[in-house]
Parts: sequence; structure tokens; C-alpha cells
Amino acid sequence: MDKFKEKTLETEKIFSGKVVNLQVDKVLLPDGNTATRELIKHPGAVAVIALNNDHKIVFVKQYRKPCERSLVEIPAGKLEPGEDPVQAAKRELEEETGYQAKELEYVTSFYSSPGFADELLHIYLATDIEKATHPLQGDADEFIEILELTLQQAKQYVAQQKICDAKTNYAVLYMELAEMRKSL
Amino acid sequence: MDKFKEKTLETEKIFSGKVVNLQVDKVLLPDGNTATRELIKHPGAVAVIALNNDHKIVFVKQYRKPCERSLVEIPAGKLEPGEDPVQAAKRELEEETGYQAKELEYVTSFYSSPGFADELLHIYLATDIEKATHPLQGDADEFIEILELTLQQAKQYVAQQKICDAKTNYAVLYMELAEMRKSL
Repeated sequence: MDKFKEKTLETEKIFSGKVVNLQVDKVLLPDGNTATRELIKHPGAVAVIALNNDHKIVFVKQYRKPCERSLVEIPAGKLEPGEDPVQAAKRELEEETGYQAKELEYVTSFYSSPGFADELLHIYLATDIEKATHPLQGDADEFIEILELTLQQAKQYVAQQKICDAKTNYAVLYMELAEMRKSL
Repeated sequence: MDKFKEKTLETEKIFSGKVVNLQVDKVLLPDGNTATRELIKHPGAVAVIALNNDHKIVFVKQYRKPCERSLVEIPAGKLEPGEDPVQAAKRELEEETGYQAKELEYVTSFYSSPGFADELLHIYLATDIEKATHPLQGDADEFIEILELTLQQAKQYVAQQKICDAKTNYAVLYMELAEMRKSL
């Protein structure tokens, strides 16, 4: 039972797109008043912290139109309808980087922007990857450069804000913590 | 110079709301083809990792309509037009928790969901906070419960997915790393 639950009174569908849907809900608040909520509906996503044989982290650099700049991120992508997140993570890693992962270890899941969007992102760790002979091809409208960086280099990218993406900043902290644990 | 830059050919404004605007851009890709991009425009946001005098982390629990559940998060909120992020962070901390921070230390900035939204989130650390006598009041449509948790408790909340929010999962890792550094 959720004491702060906001009951939906009306839903107005505004937009249905390739990536997002937008609706505005009129809700009943716990105090009996009403409010409107702008909601982005998203299929959910996966991301992979992938370590190559040299123990470097695999990143992708791509232009992000919403931000009007290129960002360096860990490989990631949207879930296809009904797709298992682990399979989606393996698919995105291969499409974006050419690397195949034998196994993925679950790291965590989080909402990217719970104030306005329902996008839930699942993060996995891949420590045993190899280049596919004939990798899956990504989307025709994605232009991606692959970067393989040491943890030290990745930390510099964060400091220089070349990396400034929630899942990727999380991934760099995660690897920093993992390295520190190993050295104890 | 950004070699993957996507030049805007047309912009169709779909929706202008309280929190988000939505537009669809037709863009010119690096290979000369065109594509459409669905873009959420957001004013940007701030969040605070606040430690109380018992060295507990201050969280807020609130219902998140997009996710149809309550989430435990670090205090956060949208930037007002023209507002300085540091002032916004102090304001949100006080409105949501009643705590005033004398000084904030900058932690990092990241885009929440750069695939479809331009929301840039700035995170600060507050280590010297005290309850305001007459705290600023938050928005009338926000119902918030305050939780003050040890790092161990916060890690359990993550494991139980009571915490599953990008900025908050980041904050818990950040504190874990800080504690580990202190113990070295």
C-alpha cells in the first residue's frame, strides 16, 4: 500500500513516437486536490560495462541530438518489445561495439528521470568479451566511434566532462569501487 | 568540431508543458541521409547528497507518477529560469527536507537520458546541514517523507530496489567510495 499514491482521473495522449510517448494525466493527490503530471513513456533500456582483454572499459562516442553534442557513454540501447534485458544487453553491445559477451553479470537497475519519464535502465557487467567475426549491424541512423579507455583515462574524461551521462558516470564509479576493493 | 554533428533541417514543436517540452527534429546525418529525432527539452535539475550530524544520508520518499510507485531519492528538483544551480540545490534541499546547507561541494554533472532528453543534472555534496527554523515550503502538489539512512541501510535499499533512481544509485556508490577512501 502506497500512502502517497496518485490515482489517475484522466489521461490525455499527446504524442506517440518511435522512442517516446507523451501523455498528460490528471491525478488525485493524497490531500484530495488534483494536479497534472506530464509523463514520458519509454520501453526501458539496457547498458553494459564491458571490459576488454587489456582490462580497458569499452565506450561509444555518438552525437546526442537532445544535448547538441557528442557524448562518451557505455554501450546501451532501448529494449525491443518483449525482449529479455540480458539478450538486449548482448545485442546492443555487439551492434554498437562488435564485441560479443559470453556472460553478463547483473549490476543494478534504475529509473533515469523518474520525475517525468518511466525509462528503467538495467546495467550489466561483461568481463569476458571478444570481437565477433560478423557482428550484428546497428541502426542505419547511428554513427558510433569506439573508445577503449583505462579506468584512469575514464576518470579524466569525467573530470573533463567528456563523460557526463548518468549511466556512464555510474559505471566509472562502479569500476573505481571494484578496483579499490581488489586492492584491499 | 564534431564530426558526427546532426544538423537540424526542420523542427516541429509538439507540446509545451510545465516540466517538459517535446519537439521532433528532422536532421541531416553525417552520411547525407536524414532521420527524425524526438527531443524532450527540460530546464535542467540539481540534486544534493546531504549528510546529517549523525553522518546519515538524507533521502526523500515520494510518489513518482511516471513509474507508478514511490521511490526513495536524494533531494532534487528542477532549475527555475535563470537560477544558479548552487542556489537551486540549497533551495530544493530546504524545501524538501527542511535542512539548510551552509556550503555545497560540487560533485558532478550528467545528462539523465541523453538519447531523448536534454535534462542536465548537477550533483552537490552537503556535509554541514542544520534544520531551518522556518524552512521554505515546497510545491503544494508534492507529498514527501524524509528518511535518514546510514550508508549500510542505503545499500540495503539499493539491493531491495527501494532505491532505483540514477542520481540516487550514483550517490550511494559515491558515499561508499568516500567511506572506503577514508578507511585506507
